Amino acid sequence: MIIVLKTSATPEQIAGFTEMLKTNYGVSVNRWDGVHSTVLGLIGDTTQVDSEFIDAQDIVESVKRVQEPYKKANRKFHPENTVIKINDTVSIGDGSLHIMAGPCSVESEAQIVQIAKDVKQSGATLLRGGAFKPRTSPYAFQGLKAEGLDLLKTARKETGLPIVTEIMRVSHIDMFENVDIIQVGARNMQNFELLKELGKTRKPILLKRGLSSTIEEWLMSAEYIMAGGNNNVMLCERGIRTYENFTRNTLDVSAIPIIKKLSHLPVIVDPSHASGKSWLVEPLAMAAVAAGADGLIIEVHNDPPHALSDGAQSLTPAQFDKVAKKVFALKAALAEQQ
Amino acid sequence: MIIVLKTSATPEQIAGFTEMLKTNYGVSVNRWDGVHSTVLGLIGDTTQVDSEFIDAQDIVESVKRVQEPYKKANRKFHPENTVIKINDTVSIGDGSLHIMAGPCSVESEAQIVQIAKDVKQSGATLLRGGAFKPRTSPYAFQGLKAEGLDLLKTARKETGLPIVTEIMRVSHIDMFENVDIIQVGARNMQNFELLKELGKTRKPILLKRGLSSTIEEWLMSAEYIMAGGNNNVMLCERGIRTYENFTRNTLDVSAIPIIKKLSHLPVIVDPSHASGKSWLVEPLAMAAVAAGADGLIIEVHNDPPHALSDGAQSLTPAQFDKVAKKVFALKAALAEQQ
Amino acid sequence: MIIVLKTSATPEQIAGFTEMLKTNYGVSVNRWDGVHSTVLGLIGDTTQVDSEFIDAQDIVESVKRVQEPYKKANRKFHPENTVIKINDTVSIGDGSLHIMAGPCSVESEAQIVQIAKDVKQSGATLLRGGAFKPRTSPYAFQGLKAEGLDLLKTARKETGLPIVTEIMRVSHIDMFENVDIIQVGARNMQNFELLKELGKTRKPILLKRGLSSTIEEWLMSAEYIMAGGNNNVMLCERGIRTYENFTRNTLDVSAIPIIKKLSHLPVIVDPSHASGKSWLVEPLAMAAVAAGADGLIIEVHNDPPHALSDGAQSLTPAQFDKVAKKVFALKAALAEQQ
Amino acid sequence: MIIVLKTSATPEQIAGFTEMLKTNYGVSVNRWDGVHSTVLGLIGDTTQVDSEFIDAQDIVESVKRVQEPYKKANRKFHPENTVIKINDTVSIGDGSLHIMAGPCSVESEAQIVQIAKDVKQSGATLLRGGAFKPRTSPYAFQGLKAEGLDLLKTARKETGLPIVTEIMRVSHIDMFENVDIIQVGARNMQNFELLKELGKTRKPILLKRGLSSTIEEWLMSAEYIMAGGNNNVMLCERGIRTYENFTRNTLDVSAIPIIKKLSHLPVIVDPSHASGKSWLVEPLAMAAVAAGADGLIIEVHNDPPHALSDGAQSLTPAQFDKVAKKVFALKAALAEQQ
Repeated sequence: MIIVLKTSATPEQIAGFTEMLKTNYGVSVNRWDGVHSTVLGLIGDTTQVDSEFIDAQDIVESVKRVQEPYKKANRKFHPENTVIKINDTVSIGDGSLHIMAGPCSVESEAQIVQIAKDVKQSGATLLRGGAFKPRTSPYAFQGLKAEGLDLLKTARKETGLPIVTEIMRVSHIDMFENVDIIQVGARNMQNFELLKELGKTRKPILLKRGLSSTIEEWLMSAEYIMAGGNNNVMLCERGIRTYENFTRNTLDVSAIPIIKKLSHLPVIVDPSHASGKSWLVEPLAMAAVAAGADGLIIEVHNDPPHALSDGAQSLTPAQFDKVAKKVFALKAALAEQQ
Repeated sequence: MIIVLKTSATPEQIAGFTEMLKTNYGVSVNRWDGVHSTVLGLIGDTTQVDSEFIDAQDIVESVKRVQEPYKKANRKFHPENTVIKINDTVSIGDGSLHIMAGPCSVESEAQIVQIAKDVKQSGATLLRGGAFKPRTSPYAFQGLKAEGLDLLKTARKETGLPIVTEIMRVSHIDMFENVDIIQVGARNMQNFELLKELGKTRKPILLKRGLSSTIEEWLMSAEYIMAGGNNNVMLCERGIRTYENFTRNTLDVSAIPIIKKLSHLPVIVDPSHASGKSWLVEPLAMAAVAAGADGLIIEVHNDPPHALSDGAQSLTPAQFDKVAKKVFALKAALAEQQ
Repeated sequence: MIIVLKTSATPEQIAGFTEMLKTNYGVSVNRWDGVHSTVLGLIGDTTQVDSEFIDAQDIVESVKRVQEPYKKANRKFHPENTVIKINDTVSIGDGSLHIMAGPCSVESEAQIVQIAKDVKQSGATLLRGGAFKPRTSPYAFQGLKAEGLDLLKTARKETGLPIVTEIMRVSHIDMFENVDIIQVGARNMQNFELLKELGKTRKPILLKRGLSSTIEEWLMSAEYIMAGGNNNVMLCERGIRTYENFTRNTLDVSAIPIIKKLSHLPVIVDPSHASGKSWLVEPLAMAAVAAGADGLIIEVHNDPPHALSDGAQSLTPAQFDKVAKKVFALKAALAEQQ
Repeated sequence: MIIVLKTSATPEQIAGFTEMLKTNYGVSVNRWDGVHSTVLGLIGDTTQVDSEFIDAQDIVESVKRVQEPYKKANRKFHPENTVIKINDTVSIGDGSLHIMAGPCSVESEAQIVQIAKDVKQSGATLLRGGAFKPRTSPYAFQGLKAEGLDLLKTARKETGLPIVTEIMRVSHIDMFENVDIIQVGARNMQNFELLKELGKTRKPILLKRGLSSTIEEWLMSAEYIMAGGNNNVMLCERGIRTYENFTRNTLDVSAIPIIKKLSHLPVIVDPSHASGKSWLVEPLAMAAVAAGADGLIIEVHNDPPHALSDGAQSLTPAQFDKVAKKVFALKAALAEQQ
């Protein structure tokens, strides 16, 4: 961390400030006196140093972090890719491509079992489906809740596909005991109390990026979970909020290689929520795989026009089959290039 | 709600779709056949109509809402301003100006009691202070928690100032029983489970706008609380996330008159978080009052350089005194103009 | 166009307004009277109808465009892809993939000729290079100007590669007579006077997307050029401005399939400016090709650390060779899938 | 400027790099060797140092500017407010409040003369009106052009009000000789060729902020004009582009005090374009004045529903009279507080 001091800082102030830095954070401090300003350089583990606090000091002109504020999620300290083993056949982050597919909301046993069979047939290796649904309006369908979880388990039993579903509340963690991957939605990415509690479990977590979260904030939310001891975190890019309103969100495809560089955690991409339009799912899925994603999460519904939520972005099983074939073929072609 | 159908829609499809609209939503449907397209107009209460669901229909080209999706928060249905009475002297939304002032974090009894006395002296009518702190980093100070709540109550006892503090978790609601105004932070604006539970209480809620929430989404979050029966909601504009990075956030001053037009709920403005810089608090506070805000929430710390969080945006009691004098003088001048 | 009138509109006002619409725009007007509001539907060519003007009418509640405001750039009216033939071997938009490569700024004959040879060797079919440079600072290097154009022509002579370079001023159009593709930079995307003059030429134009332009505004700028009779327009996605500041801009990969659907014009992607970091060029180029781009424009410099502009995002010829091989292999693999 | 070098930098590389910095920029270089990295500090005039170029160096980890990249626009070097004297009665930036009012487009002599008389009556001291209009669509009304300029001069003759109007093209500068203030529109804020040419004149320039320009980029555009010798620059905040779409743009009210701190140039605010809605003009104008603006530019039209452009945001003369009275009363009240 580099700290530029104001020209008005007195020698006494600088000495006192330096002392405080050493005592509070256990860092060593190098000092360089220029003609117009004094610069301090902090050496050691600066993860714990609160840069806003430093920036607030009267004698400080500005602060520059050299080291990232996240540690457990940081590739610098964990050069190897994290691989999350879900079951005997599904390991995420090992170089293979996995597709999580299924309906936005679980609606009935017949629906979820049939979709599970269909997407498995097309190559999906995980089943997604919403039991608890975060909806902007209190008057919109909020999901089948506990019953939805049971139906997902039924579909898992029928097909063998591990299940991915969203949690919305700390008190539900016990209920999600038997879920294979717990999803934290974009709106809860900075629900720190939920993150802390999930950090106490050892469940694989799919952490969606907040609507307007920076990549650093997103990694800091992963760090919250990992700080509790749970290293099974996957990051899911699902589009960010920009001024462009043709699509619901703007897929930040750059986030894939950036996360891969900054962190060792797997990256999943959600082309359905990123675009909000079913005809954009294929090109965005292709782009995500070409950019290095470890997996995709795609909405599939047997009857999109009658879906109880997000029908506009859902594929039919037949459409999904075509997309899955294309992305797996792309993945195979990319593998050959290596 | 106006629904434009695709040119490819068949008469049978249109008839079936129209029937579904009537049955599912209890609305009546008017139809207008143009040369190139058919338009349907829905009459009745369309609050319950899920426009994304409609948009997903195969035969639908596009959808346009004419009526707002919120009802209880809508001024059309409640033309009178909501006034929230906190105690005998503080009523928010009645045309008077109230300032909530205090430190970002409660740090000690001496600190909070002294600041409370100071800000009261300067004209603040409510004491703010954080006991549970949402922090981007798991390694940053997270607040004194329950002890912080107790210290706020001590300060209230000493000064008579009602207290405002942030909740972060459903399971804490009981602990906040004796708080005067419960704040929902920006990162929890769409923590729908928390909103629903707060809707079951009758506590005044200060609902901060999400970092990248539209005004409509913000009002929908107020609607979540109100749908549960709790009408005591205040909206707090605290800056939105934009590409500009000179300030931490961009104060959306337009939100004040817009909320006043669309809704009957009081509007509070937080110039401290909106800017992240103490020298911007005064001009932004002045702008907010001139634009019609019902109140301000301002960070004040006896020793900003040593504040445990957000020191950079805190005023000293002396600086706050100056700002308070100016905004109250402005408010008085504006009142005379009426 | 659908126009919702206010409930307060009188029959006389509605009649007068309807008459005005017919007279001014030559459209026919259908009317539908609901219980709470009257809706007008305009039939005919509404491209000329100024929706802001309509929205300003006292009796108008809101306006909804059904038809896009662009016509010549619209795929609905020109279903076939536009193919822009640059020379005997380069046709852009015909399903093949073209790479425009070269330095941000032309610096010397030796530099540009060598880079031209190198990139040609790697498969690039066009040479890019800046002679006139738009720079944020008046004190930064502004390009070699006319001399730079001459050096580009020398490099073309040596290699046969057509040249692409940026224009910044109407009075330079004559000087660009002998350039193969004229680039309009992001900052000039809405320099309407320049667009109009370029519309009078028949030169191929590479129109970069503005830093915060919507896709519709971008297509309207293409329409400006095409309205003058010049149909040789290519659209270049180069990243948009968002809150995320890890990358210089955010590549909007969705823009590729969206433009392909809305318009018949070719789409080129600039992964160098979109990211501002050389290590992101490869994954973004791969994503762009997988999403359907007709071409790429990539910065290559023989000595990036000493480049006079934008060195941070430039590849060395060796790095470019590797990227080009990968994207052409990807293109071939995608072609086989068809 | 602080430059953090990579750990991999060799002593030879560091020595060579340091030499280059001294030679190219005439700065002196201080060096500080930490345990993990070497930091260089540049002393002297770093305005000319291209930070992107530095950042591109192989051995550079990151760069931090301490000094702003603008000089002539910088308050540090010109502590006194710039006051721009338009005529005997109008001096902008001297602490008084000026309103520029008039129609978006000049439409006829009768229109512009009448509006000029009306706004003068209400206290406006300058007349605004568009002769050349930048429009998103090539099919929309583009202004009366040269005839519009003549009509503005007629209105000036009738009322004595100096005139403000927008230029769109370098070749028009001669035609604008007799205009009092030349406006550069938001879309041309980075039309650097236009800025350079305006820098050669001595005309007062009203430089609107680009739709998504940072405050620093905006000041750099002012610097372009000033670098040519023309110091008569006013900055006009007119709203920025954000994700919020209730208003056309989001007024960045914070920009007012920020510009006042960073620069000595006057700040004008345009509440009409910032909001796009006439009912928001009053509260935003009040906010702007309370935050310290030197002037306002407001659209007034005798017949907004029939305005040929931007009617939705125009006030009638009667509405303007009310707004002007309120803002002048506010200004007087603020002056008394001082």
